[in-house]
Amino acid sequence: MVGTRNPLNLGAAARAMSNFGARNLRVVRPWELAFREARSAVGAKDLLAQAEEYPTVAEAIADCSLVVGTTAARNREFHHPIKRLEDGARLIRGRLATGRVALLFGSEKVGLSNSDLSHCHWLLRIPTRPEHGSMNLGQAVAVCLYELVRNARSQAKREKQSRAKAGELERITELLFDALRSSGYVKLRTSDVTKEKLRRMVRRMQLDPEDATLWLGMVRQIAWKLEQDPGEAENRK
Amino acid sequence: MVGTRNPLNLGAAARAMSNFGARNLRVVRPWELAFREARSAVGAKDLLAQAEEYPTVAEAIADCSLVVGTTAARNREFHHPIKRLEDGARLIRGRLATGRVALLFGSEKVGLSNSDLSHCHWLLRIPTRPEHGSMNLGQAVAVCLYELVRNARSQAKREKQSRAKAGELERITELLFDALRSSGYVKLRTSDVTKEKLRRMVRRMQLDPEDATLWLGMVRQIAWKLEQDPGEAENRK
Repeated sequence: MVGTRNPLNLGAAARAMSNFGARNLRVVRPWELAFREARSAVGAKDLLAQAEEYPTVAEAIADCSLVVGTTAARNREFHHPIKRLEDGARLIRGRLATGRVALLFGSEKVGLSNSDLSHCHWLLRIPTRPEHGSMNLGQAVAVCLYELVRNARSQAKREKQSRAKAGELERITELLFDALRSSGYVKLRTSDVTKEKLRRMVRRMQLDPEDATLWLGMVRQIAWKLEQDPGEAENRK
Repeated sequence: MVGTRNPLNLGAAARAMSNFGARNLRVVRPWELAFREARSAVGAKDLLAQAEEYPTVAEAIADCSLVVGTTAARNREFHHPIKRLEDGARLIRGRLATGRVALLFGSEKVGLSNSDLSHCHWLLRIPTRPEHGSMNLGQAVAVCLYELVRNARSQAKREKQSRAKAGELERITELLFDALRSSGYVKLRTSDVTKEKLRRMVRRMQLDPEDATLWLGMVRQIAWKLEQDPGEAENRK
């Protein structure tokens, strides 16, 4: 974090680092007050307590084998290759296997200076809208770190949901049909709901075993209650 | 944004929305002061000025065909499928082709309540470290929106099926609950079926608009018929 002014942003950066498992926070020329206040902020106390302060970017990144600057600007003239966050993150992950990587964030007002940028191998850009490219500092840190860890353990295996057995679905269908007949719905609109239509509809619900049991209990009770109605019972005789 | 307390977080959420091209900010029961102060915040004035305020989640999401909750918790017991942000974003992008999608963020202190969550089809989790899972609210919004636009032109997992709107699902839930109460089911097993449980169950059905209309007609008729039963009507007085 270079020249950060707002303690909330330092605190937010530290918190995002903690969330996503980045450990070494280094601050370069922070506004004195900002740094002191941020240290007392909640959320990532240890990380802030261990943050190292440097007078220059050069000293802060001395032990890093890759230095990447961040920028929101599109129209400023850069002398660096600019990579989309997603592409850049892939390169960073690769480099992290063999050495330290520095991710530089400039101050809220002016970003990284040309002097700061001169230490960078290339620049990273978050794909924001052209009309509103400039992100809040703490949010930009969070998004960059998220992209770095996003795919670490990628392709989470698809959860395999179990499904209710056909016999249960058929009992639900039967009871629902009974309830609809008792309630007068089927009689009113025979053309609308046939038993086949109802059966297909119940299958489309893709019930798991627990929900099937729940449904079975509900429609059984409803169907039973409707049967108790003596008027309706007579009608159906 | 549900029950947001800190105006900075509302402002940060609005700014991230502007950065990543999301347009409709809806706030549910915001802390009065937070909402007023956020409106005067810089960064995304138009978006905040057009933010809509709702008294309930149900009203805020009524025109959405997919409702996704966000959560940091791992050990709380959820009754919803939880998807990693990356996997969930693919589904959301697909759904955005045919309808509105609501992304719900709870309050800073307690997140989304069980009642809020019962409106959700599924939940989204940002892959943070287990030891420090809880993100700053504004940063969480930024990361989610980034993931949604990150790969916009790539494989949006297109879903051919359109889905029923939340307002219709809520009416089905209401009528089904009425029917279950009239039939004695709810009274018999209050501990078993609460309205929230029912609401979640109806969301799991993944109804398309046609099936939703069908269900609405069926439960309306059943609920109506059960109301006609004079014995039951007396019982409920």
